[in-house]
Amino acid sequence: MIIVMNENATVAQLGQVIKVLEERGLNPRPNHGSARTVIGIMKASDADLSGVAELPGVDEIAPLNSSFKMVSKDFRSEPTVINVGGAEVGGREFVVMAGPCGVESTEQLMSTARQVKASGGRVLRGGAYKPRTSPYSFQGMREEGLKILAQARAETGLPIVTEIISPELVPLVARYADIMQIGARNMQNYALLEAVGRERKPVLLKRGLMSTIEEMLLAAEYLMSGGNAQVMLCERGIRTFEKATRNTLDLSAVSVIKQLSHLPVIVDPSHAVGHVAYVADMCRASVAAGADGIIIETHPNPAVALSDGQQSLTFDAFDDLMTSLRPIAQAVGRPMIEPSGES
Amino acid sequence: MIIVMNENATVAQLGQVIKVLEERGLNPRPNHGSARTVIGIMKASDADLSGVAELPGVDEIAPLNSSFKMVSKDFRSEPTVINVGGAEVGGREFVVMAGPCGVESTEQLMSTARQVKASGGRVLRGGAYKPRTSPYSFQGMREEGLKILAQARAETGLPIVTEIISPELVPLVARYADIMQIGARNMQNYALLEAVGRERKPVLLKRGLMSTIEEMLLAAEYLMSGGNAQVMLCERGIRTFEKATRNTLDLSAVSVIKQLSHLPVIVDPSHAVGHVAYVADMCRASVAAGADGIIIETHPNPAVALSDGQQSLTFDAFDDLMTSLRPIAQAVGRPMIEPSGES
Amino acid sequence: MIIVMNENATVAQLGQVIKVLEERGLNPRPNHGSARTVIGIMKASDADLSGVAELPGVDEIAPLNSSFKMVSKDFRSEPTVINVGGAEVGGREFVVMAGPCGVESTEQLMSTARQVKASGGRVLRGGAYKPRTSPYSFQGMREEGLKILAQARAETGLPIVTEIISPELVPLVARYADIMQIGARNMQNYALLEAVGRERKPVLLKRGLMSTIEEMLLAAEYLMSGGNAQVMLCERGIRTFEKATRNTLDLSAVSVIKQLSHLPVIVDPSHAVGHVAYVADMCRASVAAGADGIIIETHPNPAVALSDGQQSLTFDAFDDLMTSLRPIAQAVGRPMIEPSGES
Amino acid sequence: MIIVMNENATVAQLGQVIKVLEERGLNPRPNHGSARTVIGIMKASDADLSGVAELPGVDEIAPLNSSFKMVSKDFRSEPTVINVGGAEVGGREFVVMAGPCGVESTEQLMSTARQVKASGGRVLRGGAYKPRTSPYSFQGMREEGLKILAQARAETGLPIVTEIISPELVPLVARYADIMQIGARNMQNYALLEAVGRERKPVLLKRGLMSTIEEMLLAAEYLMSGGNAQVMLCERGIRTFEKATRNTLDLSAVSVIKQLSHLPVIVDPSHAVGHVAYVADMCRASVAAGADGIIIETHPNPAVALSDGQQSLTFDAFDDLMTSLRPIAQAVGRPMIEPSGES
Repeated sequence: MIIVMNENATVAQLGQVIKVLEERGLNPRPNHGSARTVIGIMKASDADLSGVAELPGVDEIAPLNSSFKMVSKDFRSEPTVINVGGAEVGGREFVVMAGPCGVESTEQLMSTARQVKASGGRVLRGGAYKPRTSPYSFQGMREEGLKILAQARAETGLPIVTEIISPELVPLVARYADIMQIGARNMQNYALLEAVGRERKPVLLKRGLMSTIEEMLLAAEYLMSGGNAQVMLCERGIRTFEKATRNTLDLSAVSVIKQLSHLPVIVDPSHAVGHVAYVADMCRASVAAGADGIIIETHPNPAVALSDGQQSLTFDAFDDLMTSLRPIAQAVGRPMIEPSGES
Repeated sequence: MIIVMNENATVAQLGQVIKVLEERGLNPRPNHGSARTVIGIMKASDADLSGVAELPGVDEIAPLNSSFKMVSKDFRSEPTVINVGGAEVGGREFVVMAGPCGVESTEQLMSTARQVKASGGRVLRGGAYKPRTSPYSFQGMREEGLKILAQARAETGLPIVTEIISPELVPLVARYADIMQIGARNMQNYALLEAVGRERKPVLLKRGLMSTIEEMLLAAEYLMSGGNAQVMLCERGIRTFEKATRNTLDLSAVSVIKQLSHLPVIVDPSHAVGHVAYVADMCRASVAAGADGIIIETHPNPAVALSDGQQSLTFDAFDDLMTSLRPIAQAVGRPMIEPSGES
Repeated sequence: MIIVMNENATVAQLGQVIKVLEERGLNPRPNHGSARTVIGIMKASDADLSGVAELPGVDEIAPLNSSFKMVSKDFRSEPTVINVGGAEVGGREFVVMAGPCGVESTEQLMSTARQVKASGGRVLRGGAYKPRTSPYSFQGMREEGLKILAQARAETGLPIVTEIISPELVPLVARYADIMQIGARNMQNYALLEAVGRERKPVLLKRGLMSTIEEMLLAAEYLMSGGNAQVMLCERGIRTFEKATRNTLDLSAVSVIKQLSHLPVIVDPSHAVGHVAYVADMCRASVAAGADGIIIETHPNPAVALSDGQQSLTFDAFDDLMTSLRPIAQAVGRPMIEPSGES
Repeated sequence: MIIVMNENATVAQLGQVIKVLEERGLNPRPNHGSARTVIGIMKASDADLSGVAELPGVDEIAPLNSSFKMVSKDFRSEPTVINVGGAEVGGREFVVMAGPCGVESTEQLMSTARQVKASGGRVLRGGAYKPRTSPYSFQGMREEGLKILAQARAETGLPIVTEIISPELVPLVARYADIMQIGARNMQNYALLEAVGRERKPVLLKRGLMSTIEEMLLAAEYLMSGGNAQVMLCERGIRTFEKATRNTLDLSAVSVIKQLSHLPVIVDPSHAVGHVAYVADMCRASVAAGADGIIIETHPNPAVALSDGQQSLTFDAFDDLMTSLRPIAQAVGRPMIEPSGES
């Protein structure tokens, strides 16, 4: 069961509710969100909770079988809109985030940032810490990469999204990033979710390639119940038997999430399909499917990229894509900003 | 290996090539397509085939490792366009096929046909023979259903697409249908593929829910090598671990097929997602992804449908969907016809 | 709903029940099994069926939500034992079926048959009709292959199991085969299931590579409700994301089926793993898991096999495997026959 | 590329190799294993490495396309045997690890430990830190649970295996555990793998529920290249479309790993199948498949377990299972110890 405290409940009222529950041996576990506090209880009979709903400050008692709570539309009916450097993710605008898979050098990142800006991108992506399947693969430029990202932001004004791969890196990365990314492999890394949940910065939570939509929403619940309400969910393909694409983009997840949750949804077609030939089609499909934005990979010279070269668009292909997206975004009532044109 | 005969090769030249191959013990198996004849050979060394490429009428000798041949863009570079009752599937127009899952009564089908026509649909769908997981479920109205479909065509002018579930039904169903549908469970029913390949009518080949894109293309190769070149491929969702949707719509398959093949691609979002709440989003995504059309389920009263009620749109929802599709189709340069408005 | 008639119900009683149901507009569909007749009804209220349970000859009225009926342990509590040429499949003995993937020549099959016999195999497998993903692959020796199989049976006394790929081939194949095999791709080919259900010969029904256990049981229900009660279920691997093996052997399916059904279960490790290096381990695991038998591929010279060479055991490897199986079979109380030793 | 240093290479030789590589701008990344040091290099031409193979202390230069190195049989041909409290995992004995999913109380754990000991179990399992899909579920007794585990070890002599869910918990858990478990959700939590790789205690690495065998071996490579060679691999079921079982036990993974690696393999049937009815069959199959051991769940009263009750064996069922395993283990030449009988 969950006991949901009122937004205006006082700390004294909360303390009183917890005391009552403890006296009944119920082991209450309060989760302090930014707006509300929710108290979880493992196993309780109706008798155990008699009178609790009437205590001052208590909003309601809800069963856990709905499994997620704060991420659901029942909890908040209007869409969550997250402001990132002027772009309103989850608002009317369709937001494009773009950049290289990994930061490789100042020159590589700066030229990419200028192109992203010129073509109308809103957020610059770039990995400084790279989780890699093999211990012998390129692991990223680490803090050096974060500094290059900050430099690109300073020049172009683009906010940056970059991945955090471990709880102890949260303070460092949060100092640089505008959006903290939790990667697919870490979607159920609960220690990391808890650490990120304690920050007050937007998060991009990627769906694990083995995770159901419900599990992704529960991972987001870790973030929200930890106090971080600025969560964007990211569909990036799931693992199936089909091998023509790197993963299988589950675009219907956008539609499913929109029915269940108030959180914004971003699609990552680059990692989903894994081949540059299919990326643009899936970006166009994402707009039409109702996503709030996309995150895609572009690189000045994909052929020499240290990671994900085969799924990274050249600058020309990226600019063409942006041009083709605008009329579709317009057609579905989700306009994009005009390109600055200067690169 | 495959020996591809020239389009203008004579029967005598073909006979000569076969004779040479037989004399060398190579067991040639000719496949007579509408335009070309392709001769398959199991195992042959280069020595075995010396001189064969130079025989009169022979176009080329190709290895089998490309696995499919006649369906590929190498074989035919321009898109295949299939005329169905005036609609050009694979041409510039985005084509909507709609109707109930199964034909249940004259009244149900006629009212649906009128609505499909009024809202701008181009083809009427409706199953007369229904393959069902349980032997105790509704198996369709069979020939009676075909007659009702023909009646709906007579009144509305809409061509009809309906499923064939067994080789011996091919002559009967082909007499009524404008498009012969091969269902997902039968995608690798080779006896059925061979029987349908001998007809000269358009086919809608649905992807098996366990089938890779390559296997679907090879199933189409059965049809084309059998002589039927009017093949439309249909993505209808694959089976994955995710259970929020009935299947997982693999929209990137549209993009992959367009890279590999000249055949038109139709998307069936109704069977893919299985819930009416997600169908419209996936229809809109299909247009933007580059599909040539969609096939969707609509029913006068989904709540009492004998099959697939939960994924069938009401007439109002169908009409709203059609309205929302037009500007997207326009934005991607694939216009739809205007609705007649009369229903 | 299903109305189950008593085993001793007369034809007149059946006719009476059907008449009552028709008068109520319920469209009864009788399925005549060897022992019982079951009458399916699509949709019926309690009121519609009032008094029907009391009609003479009626055993019970059961809801369809149990989905399968005649294959379940509720319908028959003792295990079904199927006699095939002296071997009792589903009885105490652990039964090994072996032979080549496809019949390729008299010599190839005869030498294999002798080895299978000598090593203690009980049934000879061999495909005469081969369903192949590509139309250009070896399609089997067809009727010629059936004759060679019959010749091998005549010499060795081993009964034969061979695949049927199309309804119109049922009479022909049934004339030669001791066990009619329905392949994985045809598990939901209902026209074929109905045709095989009308025969009175044992069937080996293979699980579709993306079929659930419940769907396999429902496919078996087609056979049983059609009147053929001699059904063996075969687990042969399902399609998953893992590519180290051809498919993923779902050995827990043996355990699940044994809880739900009275039918015997055979495991096909050869097709499941697809590599000779893993076959023997999975055969040994199958015995210990509680399977009633296995079906495996062996070939005099796997390197030149026309199909499935990489998963076919050499004769020596096959004999070694049989030797290693015996003590495990003994340990789980499922003894195997002693090898004749003569080959 | 990987440069493998000789086992007897000196630190000075290593330093010299690194210096040469740095001077050529190759960014060498040494991984110090217990026995060997391996130097990884991202991208290097043949020219870049000319002469390196001849430097003192260098064993060989190997390409990365073999992807894993230290876990492979090429690196070490004899099986790795890991001594845990007297049991030799990977040796001749078949080792059973058992206990509750989570430590819930002193009484619950002590009674279980006594039963595990009495029935012939070799290692006691029990989670103190529980990764849970929902933030509102029981998260384990944490350090309190570790203390209870230590108490059970003190009384019964059984070594303990327990899970670590976060890098910062490694020192604490390593102080209590005999085997540090890395759970399925954390198989690709590289920060955790690195922290555990720095310890010198046995590890049980569970396969991610959507991880390939190759990815599991690469995760083990993180541990080994980090210096921890005492790695056991654990197959615990993968996620598939089949829902009759919680996951699908991929028993062929045992066979595949044994072909590729020298590391011991443990099977966890409890989490794989998720229902007590199927656990015993899969334990028996695991022995026959060639696994080195199993890890299973047993609980004094499964009905009231705080987690995984439906897959936990009662004490009686556990004892019966152990009795049934012994003759199979004997039959495959992997004897188990005799039960002490006192509980």
